[in-house]
Amino acid sequence: MKIGIPLETRPGETRVASTPDVVKKLVGQGFEVVIEAGAGVRAGYPDADYEAAGARLSDRAGAYDVDLLLKVRRPDEADVEAMRAGGLYIGLLESCGEDAILPSLLAKGMRVLALERMPRTSRAQSMDVLSSQSNIAGYRAVIEAAARYGRFLPMMMTSAGSAKPARVVVLGAGVAGLQAIATARRLGADVYAYDVRPETREQILSLGAKPIDLDLGESGAGEGGYAKELSDEAKARQQAALADELAKAHVIVTTALIPCRRAPVLVTEDVVQRMRHGSVIVDLAAASGGNCPLTVADEIVERHGVTLVGLTNFPALVPADASAFYARNLFNLIEIMVERGESGPQLKDLSADDITAAMLIQAAS
Amino acid sequence: MKIGIPLETRPGETRVASTPDVVKKLVGQGFEVVIEAGAGVRAGYPDADYEAAGARLSDRAGAYDVDLLLKVRRPDEADVEAMRAGGLYIGLLESCGEDAILPSLLAKGMRVLALERMPRTSRAQSMDVLSSQSNIAGYRAVIEAAARYGRFLPMMMTSAGSAKPARVVVLGAGVAGLQAIATARRLGADVYAYDVRPETREQILSLGAKPIDLDLGESGAGEGGYAKELSDEAKARQQAALADELAKAHVIVTTALIPCRRAPVLVTEDVVQRMRHGSVIVDLAAASGGNCPLTVADEIVERHGVTLVGLTNFPALVPADASAFYARNLFNLIEIMVERGESGPQLKDLSADDITAAMLIQAAS
Repeated sequence: MKIGIPLETRPGETRVASTPDVVKKLVGQGFEVVIEAGAGVRAGYPDADYEAAGARLSDRAGAYDVDLLLKVRRPDEADVEAMRAGGLYIGLLESCGEDAILPSLLAKGMRVLALERMPRTSRAQSMDVLSSQSNIAGYRAVIEAAARYGRFLPMMMTSAGSAKPARVVVLGAGVAGLQAIATARRLGADVYAYDVRPETREQILSLGAKPIDLDLGESGAGEGGYAKELSDEAKARQQAALADELAKAHVIVTTALIPCRRAPVLVTEDVVQRMRHGSVIVDLAAASGGNCPLTVADEIVERHGVTLVGLTNFPALVPADASAFYARNLFNLIEIMVERGESGPQLKDLSADDITAAMLIQAAS
Repeated sequence: MKIGIPLETRPGETRVASTPDVVKKLVGQGFEVVIEAGAGVRAGYPDADYEAAGARLSDRAGAYDVDLLLKVRRPDEADVEAMRAGGLYIGLLESCGEDAILPSLLAKGMRVLALERMPRTSRAQSMDVLSSQSNIAGYRAVIEAAARYGRFLPMMMTSAGSAKPARVVVLGAGVAGLQAIATARRLGADVYAYDVRPETREQILSLGAKPIDLDLGESGAGEGGYAKELSDEAKARQQAALADELAKAHVIVTTALIPCRRAPVLVTEDVVQRMRHGSVIVDLAAASGGNCPLTVADEIVERHGVTLVGLTNFPALVPADASAFYARNLFNLIEIMVERGESGPQLKDLSADDITAAMLIQAAS
């Protein structure tokens, strides 16, 4: 069975779907691995390392003409054109139901494992790319904030006096938010965190941050551990109650996302105006409209003396480790998908396992 | 007595010589403070805050026509032109003996307190801008490395496996190096450090880093706690012995400076070639020729797959805190320079105190 790893072509994408370490393991299991020349270079993995791991270097066409296509970002029409009819696409579709590319894939006779549909079960955790990449985004968001903040994050004691630690507020205590809290704490900041799901309180405390408690009159805990959308009334109460906490912050990292919905507005323009000159907001929801209405997706802007970071692909800023985790997630997934036949690995029935069944999209037969 | 605070005009300079907090204290002591409009804006201190602290906003000419001129960076000819004859310049001259601007200053009848000549005594410590700014540079160098390194600095344990902590080597354990060590340790990196002065070993250990021990056959401990230049033979031994340690590093922060001399080469091109693809070198000696010959001053370049950061003004990247420490250093200095007369503060004899005497430059009478 042939696995292909193409070069990711979305602007700003630096990750690659597999690494030399993982390729070596796949080859060891009897897969034939074809990688597009240069696919790993931007992530810090030279072609030679893939070759040493047993992969065959190829042009773009060769990397697409495979049984299992491993990708990071959603394919475009040209990608679909290049795919082998009847093959299996494993990657993010980055779609919410309606999606122009999906009919093209299915018309081509491809089957799709859409990684954003990974169930949030403990068995699936080691295969969950949303989780591994969010973790990286949370880390990198704080590094970005530290690099753009005109002061120290830690308290600094010197012979000329001391500087107080920065007051960091993290909104949303999912995977990204918890890693942002942990990283800001590492750097010595004074960290506050808020999540609409009451059960996150203990996790926030265990990382050394202070939970912000608001009484909204309802819980925002939704299915599968994700947040659900609040009522309009509760949203207004939330904004008002958060405002005073946020206006005191020097760094805000917002991570509040609701799957397939516009991100909730948590940081209003009024709050930005009240923040100290030189403060920084890193809005990890920028691609979904932003948790702050002043955020501009893919840009870094200054509004009312506050720097708003609207970058939409933080994992791509840590491409070596982001690719390594992504590659291991896919390796773990492939492990439950195949069985060893006499002539090498064979695909099992993907609709028989609850993990692959949840992600599988195929044309009605 | 009138104090002036001009806008710094060197390219990339964002700091300001005093802050609203310190201005308030100076005004409280009877000084008249004049600040050039916009002088603090890039550091995060708006004009209104200086006015609220009791300063008078002025154009450039007004901020220069004063008794005590507080500056950060060395003046140029236009600055000297604008100064009041007979005034006192307090700031960095950034010169080593020969200096075109000094005769202009003296010809103008100015006296100069060159801050880089501050004695390294414990009494002078609270006035030492080289120390406070180096501390900031050490912090920011590690933040810069973290932002440019394609992997995590801390160890990361996830359900898809773990990432090892980055191996960081800090060269030079002066103020900047020790703060770089502390910051890299905060971020969870595995930190090694080397200094030519054997007495730094305990400090390195106390910050949780591992000292790199080399046998050079001589000590590099020089006067006043600074490093001195080694013999050619010892330099060669040092390079060779360091090479293996450095080639294993993922991040190198070099801080080895010898006052008024070209910085020693510690990271050779051969070492850069041997480092892992995606590694980062932050060369804090870039302005003095660099501790790595591939460093380009004021630029960020990639050589042999390694990112070399040659920025020469790290404190300017943390301008609010850098200015705050600088301003407090100058405040502490002014405190030993003046006595309260009936009509307000009066300058004492600057040659009578060992601190001001060491920094004072004036025309022979």
